[in-house]
Amino acid sequence: MKTTIIHNGQFVVPDGNGGLKVISGYMTIEGQYITDIGEGQPSPAETFDEVIDGSHRLYLPGLVNTHGHAAMALLRGIGDDLALQVWLEQKMWPNEAKFTADDVKWGTLLSIVEMIKGGTTAFVDMYDHMDEVANAVEQSGMRGCLARGVIGLCPPDVQTAKLEEAIRFARDWNGRADGRITTMMSPHAPYTCPPDYIERIVQAAHDLQLPLHTHMSESMNEVLQNEREYGARPVEHLRKLGVFSRPCLVAHGVHLTDEEIAVLREYDVRVSHNPGSNLKLASGIARVPELLKAGVLVSLGTDSSASNNNLDMFEEMRLAALLHKGVSGDPTAVPAPQALKMGTSIGAASIWLDDVGELAAGNKADLIAVDIDQPHFYPHSDLVSHLIYSASAGDVTDSCVDGRWVMRNRELTTLDVEKIKAEFNRCYRRLVG
Amino acid sequence: MKTTIIHNGQFVVPDGNGGLKVISGYMTIEGQYITDIGEGQPSPAETFDEVIDGSHRLYLPGLVNTHGHAAMALLRGIGDDLALQVWLEQKMWPNEAKFTADDVKWGTLLSIVEMIKGGTTAFVDMYDHMDEVANAVEQSGMRGCLARGVIGLCPPDVQTAKLEEAIRFARDWNGRADGRITTMMSPHAPYTCPPDYIERIVQAAHDLQLPLHTHMSESMNEVLQNEREYGARPVEHLRKLGVFSRPCLVAHGVHLTDEEIAVLREYDVRVSHNPGSNLKLASGIARVPELLKAGVLVSLGTDSSASNNNLDMFEEMRLAALLHKGVSGDPTAVPAPQALKMGTSIGAASIWLDDVGELAAGNKADLIAVDIDQPHFYPHSDLVSHLIYSASAGDVTDSCVDGRWVMRNRELTTLDVEKIKAEFNRCYRRLVG
Repeated sequence: MKTTIIHNGQFVVPDGNGGLKVISGYMTIEGQYITDIGEGQPSPAETFDEVIDGSHRLYLPGLVNTHGHAAMALLRGIGDDLALQVWLEQKMWPNEAKFTADDVKWGTLLSIVEMIKGGTTAFVDMYDHMDEVANAVEQSGMRGCLARGVIGLCPPDVQTAKLEEAIRFARDWNGRADGRITTMMSPHAPYTCPPDYIERIVQAAHDLQLPLHTHMSESMNEVLQNEREYGARPVEHLRKLGVFSRPCLVAHGVHLTDEEIAVLREYDVRVSHNPGSNLKLASGIARVPELLKAGVLVSLGTDSSASNNNLDMFEEMRLAALLHKGVSGDPTAVPAPQALKMGTSIGAASIWLDDVGELAAGNKADLIAVDIDQPHFYPHSDLVSHLIYSASAGDVTDSCVDGRWVMRNRELTTLDVEKIKAEFNRCYRRLVG
Repeated sequence: MKTTIIHNGQFVVPDGNGGLKVISGYMTIEGQYITDIGEGQPSPAETFDEVIDGSHRLYLPGLVNTHGHAAMALLRGIGDDLALQVWLEQKMWPNEAKFTADDVKWGTLLSIVEMIKGGTTAFVDMYDHMDEVANAVEQSGMRGCLARGVIGLCPPDVQTAKLEEAIRFARDWNGRADGRITTMMSPHAPYTCPPDYIERIVQAAHDLQLPLHTHMSESMNEVLQNEREYGARPVEHLRKLGVFSRPCLVAHGVHLTDEEIAVLREYDVRVSHNPGSNLKLASGIARVPELLKAGVLVSLGTDSSASNNNLDMFEEMRLAALLHKGVSGDPTAVPAPQALKMGTSIGAASIWLDDVGELAAGNKADLIAVDIDQPHFYPHSDLVSHLIYSASAGDVTDSCVDGRWVMRNRELTTLDVEKIKAEFNRCYRRLVG
């Protein structure tokens, strides 16, 4: 198997006490795996197929985006600064109803290009026409945790057809692409799926031994509507329906009581915090310090670029670090290393990847390089802090997933970017004009 | 005088109704000024010294950063995620006390490189050793509105010496560098300047016919302390001392009552909103929608990169657009065109530049180009929205100030970046080790 060494680099590694530190040294890769990482120089006796000079580069684990709908890049910018219902009813739903498999293919590929360029190496996607998404993940070299999101506001036969499609997709694709693709079952949200339909989806997740992913408690309206219709807030409602009886990742979790946070902790439910999308749609501000204090796994997601409007995980990490300081009045809330872990190791753990998210021997080689020889990284006082408070997507130069370089010097190695942009524009013109 | 045409470009221009629109067309520049801008192609009869193909570029007014302390880049990352007093007393003040003119020179130059690379063409700076800052502005080709910030917590003879230095600086440099440098008088803050000292500074501003710039109502502690010491909140205190009898720009303005907002409007006091710094230091969240509704000029500043930690004005525009939606619960708060104006035309107006901040014939040629042929700008549905919700500093390719290109294809034309980085590192090592 091909062997690689990166030397003279700086590397963000676990500090052994739950934190992170930066070392100057080297890393070796063989096949899919990191085989060694350490300070200084490696043994001079070893030889490698590829030798990379890591000068002026900071290497860190690839970023993990734990909630999104990649194909919706086609709707970026078509309805900003609108009230939520106007945005949904006049801009999103009528256009999404027109989406074909071809649109999902090219919309997703454009988002994958954006994600790779911004340092994301693994992402969660919940959408329709998921075979196209899975094909795009396979082709791109990225890692994807994918689910056919099902909305149950439809006649029983359509419900059944969607569920069967979701089961077929989840079964077909789980573990494919050398294990880079994993799958989940996904009721879209408690307000878009009747209770008995959610129970059928949960049963399917049990049958397939797969996790669940759903939107939950994104807006106060949703919480109030759930109380009106089902006599319970979303957490209790989903708990009763068995959603937390499987490993579960919920997106948003903005409006939560102390009791609900305790329930999420009890069932080890993971929360994908989407600060950019929550702010832009005025959904509210999630209680992240309280979730972290309770021991809930809180990772970060961009949501779609129709509600964000980019897929820059550096921005989400920065928002997570800044927002909760400002809102709580505590400048020590969500410190930089915590935010970086939310975007890397906690993100990986949140989608049940146990050998991704930290640069350590034995882990999969999912990593990125950032160009720290730029003014906004000077002085090199605290590079972890700079990653959170100063960096952005455009600073990423190289990206490696599962031991394969999918971007080198900002050029993608797996995808034809010009073709993707052209096909994306063709789809956009057909959809929106 | 040299003439330039940019054709086949897209340009952000006023829409005639107080908003902004994007046109496809051309712009001509002669000397310092924009001479024509319009849709389609210019008259074929005209010839130009320089012809620029604007394909794949969006041109917009240069960004105006209305509050900062550029030299403090030397302290970036040396004390993040700390309580405010610990940060100030253990990290900032002891190190700032060691700053020499040489440190201010190289710290400022590094920040100027970062600002130019991020699309800022004009900035406010309030610091010490201001001759070095002014020299750096002159050399760089940028536009600067500069003030020697004075702290009056010192013996009377030192107070007087500082005031005389501030007066000398303001008089010497106002209008220099072909008018690119303007000056202000600057009492640092109501809590760092005794009332009689503020009155002397105000008198000097009257004598010199210059504006005033100060920090005001940044934290709730400051407001409470002002009430305890002077029996009034900062706005009333400064009004009584005559600060608003001169044109005035205040930084932060986080903690304001309705009555205070009305006073600011009455005296046409301009507010530099610094969302990134305010969040990071947990100072609070300024009442921007209320300020805008009252008709107060609200521009944007990064504050220093010790409290931000970068000088990316795209990030400040995005924070202004996102934060106030999330906090107010109103997704129509601070829409994208409003945020872009805060970063451009309102910024220019806030520092009394009446021919900067909009792309229009007769205005100074202060403009930047953004590379919109990148995935995060696709589709080209609403480019103003993309500038606010999707762009970042690294997307800027070219920058023109006062008719002179200070950056082309991301290469600076006026400054030796490698030398600046080396000298900056030398200063940093001496200061912090």
